[in-house]
Amino acid sequence: MTKPVIGVDWGTSNLRAFLFDENGAVREARERPTGISKIDNGAFEAALAAAINVWAPDGADIVLCGMIGARQGWAEAAYAPCPASCADWAGGVRALQTTLGDAMIAPGLRLDAPGHPADVMRGEETQIFGALGEDEDAIVVAPGTHSKWAPVDHGRILSFRTFMTGELHALLLNHSILGRMADGAAHDPDAFAHGVDLSMADPALSATLFSARSEALMGRLKEHAVSAYVSGLLIGAEIAANRDALGAPIVVIASDTLAGLYDTALRRAGA
Amino acid sequence: MTKPVIGVDWGTSNLRAFLFDENGAVREARERPTGISKIDNGAFEAALAAAINVWAPDGADIVLCGMIGARQGWAEAAYAPCPASCADWAGGVRALQTTLGDAMIAPGLRLDAPGHPADVMRGEETQIFGALGEDEDAIVVAPGTHSKWAPVDHGRILSFRTFMTGELHALLLNHSILGRMADGAAHDPDAFAHGVDLSMADPALSATLFSARSEALMGRLKEHAVSAYVSGLLIGAEIAANRDALGAPIVVIASDTLAGLYDTALRRAGA
Repeated sequence: MTKPVIGVDWGTSNLRAFLFDENGAVREARERPTGISKIDNGAFEAALAAAINVWAPDGADIVLCGMIGARQGWAEAAYAPCPASCADWAGGVRALQTTLGDAMIAPGLRLDAPGHPADVMRGEETQIFGALGEDEDAIVVAPGTHSKWAPVDHGRILSFRTFMTGELHALLLNHSILGRMADGAAHDPDAFAHGVDLSMADPALSATLFSARSEALMGRLKEHAVSAYVSGLLIGAEIAANRDALGAPIVVIASDTLAGLYDTALRRAGA
Repeated sequence: MTKPVIGVDWGTSNLRAFLFDENGAVREARERPTGISKIDNGAFEAALAAAINVWAPDGADIVLCGMIGARQGWAEAAYAPCPASCADWAGGVRALQTTLGDAMIAPGLRLDAPGHPADVMRGEETQIFGALGEDEDAIVVAPGTHSKWAPVDHGRILSFRTFMTGELHALLLNHSILGRMADGAAHDPDAFAHGVDLSMADPALSATLFSARSEALMGRLKEHAVSAYVSGLLIGAEIAANRDALGAPIVVIASDTLAGLYDTALRRAGA
């Protein structure tokens, strides 16, 4: 009997493990809050065992992606250069022997052409190669702490761009003057739409963000809607920066909640 | 003998007091870290006494501006509407009796036209009216936690716009993933200039900010220069949003250090 195959998307905050069946479909998924930022003294093997031992008491073939392959992770898998096909990228995999079985750590992707801002991703490339077949073209959006937009041509990632959307939202709501105006993080469709529209019309994000405070002070934005308004501004800024690409097919890789927000915002923007 | 006249710019973080001579010139200035966010139980009078009693043991005429007139300050002086001349604004002053003498609290200014994002200022209007005569035209820039850009026509503030420049810089360096790449906050002229140029060329601030991390990961940006690069991106974003106004005379109201940064950035942008 062959060993079970387990994929692990191990990011900064969370670990998501997937048990695959013989056809490569996910049989079961588990998520634990043991992201690499929470692992002390390099105890990665113990954290992995806690996540997957129930599926593989006799060992498994393991594929790891995400920040686990970063310099501060378990073992560094250097960034592969972009543009990259799935095969190009797979060539950069790093092998790692563990007591749980043979593991492979997937590399991230890097952009470092002279004269252009550098960019990096770790984990999203695995989602993109997994979501799109080798004959597919699309703009792929992977929202999150650091949202990625990537044009993909025949399954090849041509380029990508990172937006600090999720991290800025958390910073602004938890640590800035905007957070003092906010009451909770419930969704408010009107405030969200208003934020998207403003970012589509006006690229000056460091100014439009302050309007969350001014609008609330003037009683034009309710405190419970500040979070949704800021979310609309930040997601709208992503879309505005990609407005030339909105005619192409767009694939959003996200949880239902986030996918719903992006779907709403993209439709407002004419995608 | 007339009472001394004392002006107090009392903001969120600091209190700055100015003793004026009979010609309205500043004879002496004092600064204390007793901004309104640090005053417990409404003990504003004691904090003011600690700052100005040495100048005025027998009482003074006191003019207060800044966040001290906000809802969370000593006594609220409602925002006056903008556009506003100095006289319009002075009509909104609120009188306050104190044991230290008669005080006047200056209002802030508000923009709340329907169909445009609201905006507010408190304190900068006093700097602008103080810096510009009634026959002067300029774009006034008041950098800081919340930088203000205001077109002024014959001493009248026509409009203004707030950029969260200083607050975003502090948030990003102290709380975000960019801060983990940064080593100190020393100035680096090349990194600063690079940030300004990138923001002038590319309005997608939530993406260009992430390049501070990617450039540092690629070894293209030194850790000691991350802070200056982010500063250049944020100040460059202000200037980019005002590029249509750069032909007009620009007056920057700031400390020497900040004024130097804006001067450098504005010259790079062709102002």
